Amino acid sequence: MTSLARIVTIITDFGCRDTYVGQMKGVIVGINPATTLIDLTHDVQPQNKLEAAFHLSAAAEAFPPATVHLIVVDPGVGTTRRIIVAEADAMRVVCPDNGIVTPLLQRGKLQRVVHVKNEAWFRSPVSNVFHGRDIMAPVAAHLCNGIELSEFGPDLPADDLVRLPEYDVIRRTTADEGRVILASVIHIDRFGNAVTSLHRDDVSGEPSQIRLVGGDHPPIPLVTHYAAGTSQQLVALFGSGQRLELAVPNGNAAEEFGIAVGDAVEWCEHSAAD
Amino acid sequence: MTSLARIVTIITDFGCRDTYVGQMKGVIVGINPATTLIDLTHDVQPQNKLEAAFHLSAAAEAFPPATVHLIVVDPGVGTTRRIIVAEADAMRVVCPDNGIVTPLLQRGKLQRVVHVKNEAWFRSPVSNVFHGRDIMAPVAAHLCNGIELSEFGPDLPADDLVRLPEYDVIRRTTADEGRVILASVIHIDRFGNAVTSLHRDDVSGEPSQIRLVGGDHPPIPLVTHYAAGTSQQLVALFGSGQRLELAVPNGNAAEEFGIAVGDAVEWCEHSAAD
Amino acid sequence: MTSLARIVTIITDFGCRDTYVGQMKGVIVGINPATTLIDLTHDVQPQNKLEAAFHLSAAAEAFPPATVHLIVVDPGVGTTRRIIVAEADAMRVVCPDNGIVTPLLQRGKLQRVVHVKNEAWFRSPVSNVFHGRDIMAPVAAHLCNGIELSEFGPDLPADDLVRLPEYDVIRRTTADEGRVILASVIHIDRFGNAVTSLHRDDVSGEPSQIRLVGGDHPPIPLVTHYAAGTSQQLVALFGSGQRLELAVPNGNAAEEFGIAVGDAVEWCEHSAAD
Repeated sequence: MTSLARIVTIITDFGCRDTYVGQMKGVIVGINPATTLIDLTHDVQPQNKLEAAFHLSAAAEAFPPATVHLIVVDPGVGTTRRIIVAEADAMRVVCPDNGIVTPLLQRGKLQRVVHVKNEAWFRSPVSNVFHGRDIMAPVAAHLCNGIELSEFGPDLPADDLVRLPEYDVIRRTTADEGRVILASVIHIDRFGNAVTSLHRDDVSGEPSQIRLVGGDHPPIPLVTHYAAGTSQQLVALFGSGQRLELAVPNGNAAEEFGIAVGDAVEWCEHSAAD
Repeated sequence: MTSLARIVTIITDFGCRDTYVGQMKGVIVGINPATTLIDLTHDVQPQNKLEAAFHLSAAAEAFPPATVHLIVVDPGVGTTRRIIVAEADAMRVVCPDNGIVTPLLQRGKLQRVVHVKNEAWFRSPVSNVFHGRDIMAPVAAHLCNGIELSEFGPDLPADDLVRLPEYDVIRRTTADEGRVILASVIHIDRFGNAVTSLHRDDVSGEPSQIRLVGGDHPPIPLVTHYAAGTSQQLVALFGSGQRLELAVPNGNAAEEFGIAVGDAVEWCEHSAAD
Repeated sequence: MTSLARIVTIITDFGCRDTYVGQMKGVIVGINPATTLIDLTHDVQPQNKLEAAFHLSAAAEAFPPATVHLIVVDPGVGTTRRIIVAEADAMRVVCPDNGIVTPLLQRGKLQRVVHVKNEAWFRSPVSNVFHGRDIMAPVAAHLCNGIELSEFGPDLPADDLVRLPEYDVIRRTTADEGRVILASVIHIDRFGNAVTSLHRDDVSGEPSQIRLVGGDHPPIPLVTHYAAGTSQQLVALFGSGQRLELAVPNGNAAEEFGIAVGDAVEWCEHSAAD
């Protein structure tokens, strides 16, 4: 009994002006009235799978093990794109197969994935335009009721899932530069901090240099918290989600330095031979 | 016991910058701590009753039967406008009598309406400027506690309620056109889809033509889901709330075609005699 | 048992685009799954302590006694600023010591304050950049679990807390003016109403005059509700939070009259000797 999930988090690109999110919640509490519903964000840029993947990756760790994460960023609704349930330890993720689980895949955390096909667990009738409410929300609620993954459909091999290349980091080693890890900006947050794909686990020590690729930027010092450094200076730090962020103390890094999603950042380490 | 409502949904025009919605929730959980509170939207354009009515109508069906819907879009607060509880099957709606329940009236779903007058169920003292918190929220919470409708005040005849004409559809039949149903745009959603007053139950078959009245628009094809059709083309489909919507695949219909609330749309059916 | 808090309200300046608020909620329900979480607002202007203090003050009264209020508006995160738990009757407030509890201090409501220092109750490890999630959220959840204030750290004298001067009202009495209370605008709400620091308890009777200081404004009539008065006229009323507000019937007072936070308002009472 203790392993029964009771928490369902929700990420969508629906915004909060309409009742789409509320309708999904109505379906969930109709199936399992004891569910605790927690909004992660509904302000994903419409159809931006990269952003949805980032939010799941940033938030999942703060939740208790048996949480169900429901992510409805679904440009392919009504087409043949698949809906999946992905399992990583006791956590379950319900989403379209469009790359949202890439950070979990990449870190080797996905243990099992099923292709949701069994209509017995769907709302009836299923609207062609709102699978979030009619398929994904009911599946999340039934997971909270203890329904086994195998009930929803057949297993899928992890290799078969759609994967977002933006989460990859590229490593190179040269005689004059030492080891270099090339990462990219994957998210700009409300404060203008630019979060990169570089995870703390990707690096082994202190950097000799951190730099923005392109333009004419000076090297970026690594600090431990936002209030460090002087104003108008770009600093780098590992943020609350363990990813390298570029920030300006009391400022907006993205605006002041023109940083955007997709920009390249290099983390340089001198090789042991130096 | 099974018919006890435990879910209260909330629609307001309060936005989320202030704590007005939170204050209503505080009052509700103070009266019934077991309530599950679900936000439908707080971004109704200030005092826009038509939009509030639309959101209630679109969302209600996704919720379990005994849900209480609390709608505080109340330009008349402090005047003599009435506050009502409307009952439709096991569902209850608490709102000002300003037309919000029009779609329920129109579809013949309202079974009973009472005029909320019994101050014994109000918060004390009642602020002149916030009946949402001091009258409507406590009434919703007491409904969840199983208090009978008759406790709140006298019955009102349905004919006596304020009704929004925008939800009406107008039918005409002529020799050359056949049957025509004239509807109007009642809502533009976040994606720019233009939702009309035409409900799937209003039509009996396939249309011979769908058209935007005014301007010089070509006939609009009826499709089954957003991803159908080509980009930059206006298509029509029955949306997740069973109303006819105008949409542009991967686009914003309202912006690209200049569609606004109030615009007229015609659904034409050739008569059986054709 | 009846005094166990189960409600945690949350005020932040995090916005809703990112998952920061959701992460705090994940930590809370991980510690106490029975918590009812209620968002007050996440749209505090970044780092605006005055606004956070206002929202707490406006909302607290609507909640049942044992509520825990968690306020994370924390420009000093990572520096040596203190985190506190403040107690006012059965209510508890968890926030940085940066002036947020000023309205409670000012009205003599704070009974006890402790300096949060005991890391045993923190999330581990504590991120340098997100004390809301790693210190304040767990403390709020442990308070709901019935942990005593003394467990979190040593008592602080109320005199030692940071205090925001904007909440002060200044009284003067002169021969020709009588008694005058000088207050200031502390908040503009979504409707453009300008809320002042003047609380109903600060005044003893009807005013002889209410005026905006500076510019060339006519005296402002005191009314009882928003729909009173004529359009385009500035009126004053005691709002739902018992503070004097300036409003325009069916209009936006702040925009139409150029009122901003910090503007001075005078409440004049003729002395008894008149």
